[in-house]
Amino acid sequence: MKFEETRETVLSELQTVFASIDPDQVEKMADMICASEKVFVVGVGRVLLMMQAFEKRLNHLGIDSYYVGEINEPAITDKDLLIVGSGSGESIVPVAMVKVASKFKPKIIHIGSNPQSSMTPYEDLFVRIPCSTKLNLDDEIKSRQIMSSLFEQSVLLLADMTAMLIADRKNITDLHSLWRKHANIE
Amino acid sequence: MKFEETRETVLSELQTVFASIDPDQVEKMADMICASEKVFVVGVGRVLLMMQAFEKRLNHLGIDSYYVGEINEPAITDKDLLIVGSGSGESIVPVAMVKVASKFKPKIIHIGSNPQSSMTPYEDLFVRIPCSTKLNLDDEIKSRQIMSSLFEQSVLLLADMTAMLIADRKNITDLHSLWRKHANIE
Amino acid sequence: MKFEETRETVLSELQTVFASIDPDQVEKMADMICASEKVFVVGVGRVLLMMQAFEKRLNHLGIDSYYVGEINEPAITDKDLLIVGSGSGESIVPVAMVKVASKFKPKIIHIGSNPQSSMTPYEDLFVRIPCSTKLNLDDEIKSRQIMSSLFEQSVLLLADMTAMLIADRKNITDLHSLWRKHANIE
Amino acid sequence: MKFEETRETVLSELQTVFASIDPDQVEKMADMICASEKVFVVGVGRVLLMMQAFEKRLNHLGIDSYYVGEINEPAITDKDLLIVGSGSGESIVPVAMVKVASKFKPKIIHIGSNPQSSMTPYEDLFVRIPCSTKLNLDDEIKSRQIMSSLFEQSVLLLADMTAMLIADRKNITDLHSLWRKHANIE
Repeated sequence: MKFEETRETVLSELQTVFASIDPDQVEKMADMICASEKVFVVGVGRVLLMMQAFEKRLNHLGIDSYYVGEINEPAITDKDLLIVGSGSGESIVPVAMVKVASKFKPKIIHIGSNPQSSMTPYEDLFVRIPCSTKLNLDDEIKSRQIMSSLFEQSVLLLADMTAMLIADRKNITDLHSLWRKHANIE
Repeated sequence: MKFEETRETVLSELQTVFASIDPDQVEKMADMICASEKVFVVGVGRVLLMMQAFEKRLNHLGIDSYYVGEINEPAITDKDLLIVGSGSGESIVPVAMVKVASKFKPKIIHIGSNPQSSMTPYEDLFVRIPCSTKLNLDDEIKSRQIMSSLFEQSVLLLADMTAMLIADRKNITDLHSLWRKHANIE
Repeated sequence: MKFEETRETVLSELQTVFASIDPDQVEKMADMICASEKVFVVGVGRVLLMMQAFEKRLNHLGIDSYYVGEINEPAITDKDLLIVGSGSGESIVPVAMVKVASKFKPKIIHIGSNPQSSMTPYEDLFVRIPCSTKLNLDDEIKSRQIMSSLFEQSVLLLADMTAMLIADRKNITDLHSLWRKHANIE
Repeated sequence: MKFEETRETVLSELQTVFASIDPDQVEKMADMICASEKVFVVGVGRVLLMMQAFEKRLNHLGIDSYYVGEINEPAITDKDLLIVGSGSGESIVPVAMVKVASKFKPKIIHIGSNPQSSMTPYEDLFVRIPCSTKLNLDDEIKSRQIMSSLFEQSVLLLADMTAMLIADRKNITDLHSLWRKHANIE
């Protein structure tokens, strides 16, 4: 196998996925983030890593954000937003976290592929990335990549597109100025 | 700003970046990973998160991998490979780690944008993703995205393309079988 | 308040706690660790940090260990051991993890204060540190320290005492030699 | 070896260590923490885990704290405090971090065993825990425990004693109330 073949596979699959994402859902997510006091992200495995990248960017944009399990994680309240990344919506730990968190009445967004999951009753917004996951639903986009790579890549790109929408809504025009909020001990 | 605009920006910038990556460098990286006993990844911030996603996928492929700083990190030896993700090649902590690691004679790969950095003397292979970073070199691709988002996205996609090359070289044809190595307490 | 007063409080509380720990339970734990192929540790908050310190020391002793959620976490099997640190035995996430893990039939040890918890049905061994936790059971040792500090300190010291038992059982007499397994990129 | 022997070793070594710590240094540390806008902690390996436990407790006490490398880490300023845990004061990564951080003029505390290290020129306060580390200085307390266990245990206990001093200085008398700042999605 040649690099060119894998490049073509990944980039064309991403084109297909993003053509099928509902713009309204993403813009609604940007609005909900801007309206929240704090944001908490949840995920497992590589999806958690992508949600942490989202969290880091939100902090650059001046939005206090944490991942559930972070050492300095504060208590969640009804003014906050919980964003769960989970393709199937059935991973045990995120589902348990959503159930506990829901007692404190934050808004809840689920970024996933499966529109009818154990998380559905708890969600204020579902942002669909219709990539094939373990569940292999009929209307999901199939991937030639390893495991859930396509979903994970899509979560990162979606997060970064959402960050651009937020910067615009917050009138942050000098993007370079964001480095000032960035960790400076590296 | 509309979602469609951010989608177009991100996907077209990724097309431009990947058209400018040298296939030989990526295939060489896949070969070096397959030839190593263990792989260690290094990075800071969002780049570290992307390198950790790379590490996780390499473990799925049966390659013992760690990030530097991981709790169960073992000692590095001259049979191992160190892969550093750093756009500028000048971040203090990765440079310090490369210097210490080099005493133990592992092979060293640098994934970055800047071809002449403090890391250059230590590198066995430089894989160039020519995205604009803080340094803003003349021959780098400029981005309309926030901070180094384009570089970080490119590291993830490059890692996943490299993983496909490795699966091919190791004759792993049943990609679904990889779930068996995956963490099962989620 | 003076330093001397806090010093006295902490050290005397630890003396009381350790006088009340059953030596047989700790020695049984050391035996079970030595008999396992891999060890997985679980906890939340500061207890997780202490369990991670345990994990790191077990790796030094040549025992492959991971925390649940670690990036390179492999699949758990019936040859492995899961050690949960949880004072109350009722934290939602560890309980969810124990339930999922138990399907794969590892041995399960619970280090905690509450002898009758949601985890009890899943435990092969309960190692009791009878410190007051949120539940405030009648037969627990009360503490003048902040929150669950006494329990967390006790978990760390118990882990390090157990590590000494394991080194002895494995005839590791040259303790200095353990540095060879230690991460060398620091 | 029996549990009772390890118990005796650990507890008696801790008694010896804490009898040799200078109360003034610890009380000065508590004062400096109370006077800071934000606190950043640094360490490697098990010492980092202990410093993270310190950080977590400081957050409970209403002091914004981070570890260097944390995902939501902000920029450090001259109103902040950096606390480095390092027995030898010579670990490459913490030394590199101290050098970079010092440009932004935070106050710097070093908790360590070696009073004359590469960090000494940068320190506003040195808190000495005179435990034997890799350097094996003449006036350090020797330990029968594995590697640097005694130093790591001492860092945790010292952090918790310092937290009690801070609670006292901040007139936090209802310690149970601190749970309200605690992460509630567990």
